[in-house]
Amino acid sequence: MIYLDFVPRSQPASEPAAAITLVEEPGPDRRSRRRAEGRQRVFRAAVDLFIERGFDATTMDDIAERADVARATVFNYFQRKTAFLDEWSAGRRQYALAAVRAEHLDDHPLPEVLDRYMIELARLSTRTRAETVALMGAAVHSTNVLGNPPLALELATFITRARDSGQVRADVDPDLAGLLVATGYFAILTEWIAAEPAPFDLESRLLHMVAILCQGLSS
Amino acid sequence: MIYLDFVPRSQPASEPAAAITLVEEPGPDRRSRRRAEGRQRVFRAAVDLFIERGFDATTMDDIAERADVARATVFNYFQRKTAFLDEWSAGRRQYALAAVRAEHLDDHPLPEVLDRYMIELARLSTRTRAETVALMGAAVHSTNVLGNPPLALELATFITRARDSGQVRADVDPDLAGLLVATGYFAILTEWIAAEPAPFDLESRLLHMVAILCQGLSS
Repeated sequence: MIYLDFVPRSQPASEPAAAITLVEEPGPDRRSRRRAEGRQRVFRAAVDLFIERGFDATTMDDIAERADVARATVFNYFQRKTAFLDEWSAGRRQYALAAVRAEHLDDHPLPEVLDRYMIELARLSTRTRAETVALMGAAVHSTNVLGNPPLALELATFITRARDSGQVRADVDPDLAGLLVATGYFAILTEWIAAEPAPFDLESRLLHMVAILCQGLSS
Repeated sequence: MIYLDFVPRSQPASEPAAAITLVEEPGPDRRSRRRAEGRQRVFRAAVDLFIERGFDATTMDDIAERADVARATVFNYFQRKTAFLDEWSAGRRQYALAAVRAEHLDDHPLPEVLDRYMIELARLSTRTRAETVALMGAAVHSTNVLGNPPLALELATFITRARDSGQVRADVDPDLAGLLVATGYFAILTEWIAAEPAPFDLESRLLHMVAILCQGLSS
């Protein structure tokens, strides 16, 4: 099983701040490290179970047992079962964004930025198809992926930058444009996971979408 | 309460065909008419209850009681509660398509066709906001609106025609383009129903989407 390794998000607000602010080291202290490791173990146990049994059939108790932690520990890291789906999506966005940053593409033409972002998501999805089928399928059925998706906001920042540099028409609303790219991605991914084997090449289809939308946005 | 009046769909396959094929009249016979009226009464009762109590809180028993029919009658017309949502969406598509047909726009430039289609959906949604909030909200939460939506297929027929007449680039896949317009519409409608009062003018936003996508598809 291949997992996406992502950096755990920062401590939730409920965590006492003292444990972090009192240490003078720049890196995370031992307690933060342990917490991150525990959180990651719970997350991996949950993803494994979603793939094996399905999202609906997996309980928080099952996840606690598989991760060998107390039930309360699972709830401490993930308050609801859908929080695993949010974490999974956030990790994928972070992965794609890291690829754009690593190649210093931020200031390149918009099609180049969006192509790279979508290529990363396509390859990751293809490498981890079982995981993508289980978790994206659960996200589509158990969460409102259309309602204000964080992916749309992230894509809107690319589009705003492209508009500011004159590549995108001035009358385009970047938030709407980001929403169109994000929901197009969700719809294509939903079709791609709906049949076995994969009914089309995900990367080509996502790039076709990017080509249409970039021409639509261009000045 | 304003309803969309639509023609009920044809008899389900479970209905004995003899009752229809044996009559010689071209129009619907009395039994078909009664059935259509009964179906429509059940549908209206369900929509009323979804608006008043919400989709999840309404049971098939509630619908039977409100429509003053037996529970089995409700199930005869609508096998699942989500079938009311499918019927509602189908009625809206039929309404928008009728407007395009009434103005003989089918062979006009694609932006004109899509503008008219979206204007009709926007005005209908705005006139029936309470109904749209209740039923679209339920559709987003209780059905997979992203998975192969019938709206995408309907829009793809417009795009195929535009491609055949050279308005749309030859390398565009009309199914993908239809999916992008359909999911853009769903995403915008989802944002529009998520706040009270309506957070933006639905018609303007849908037309902005159509403008972006039509430029993206144009040859």
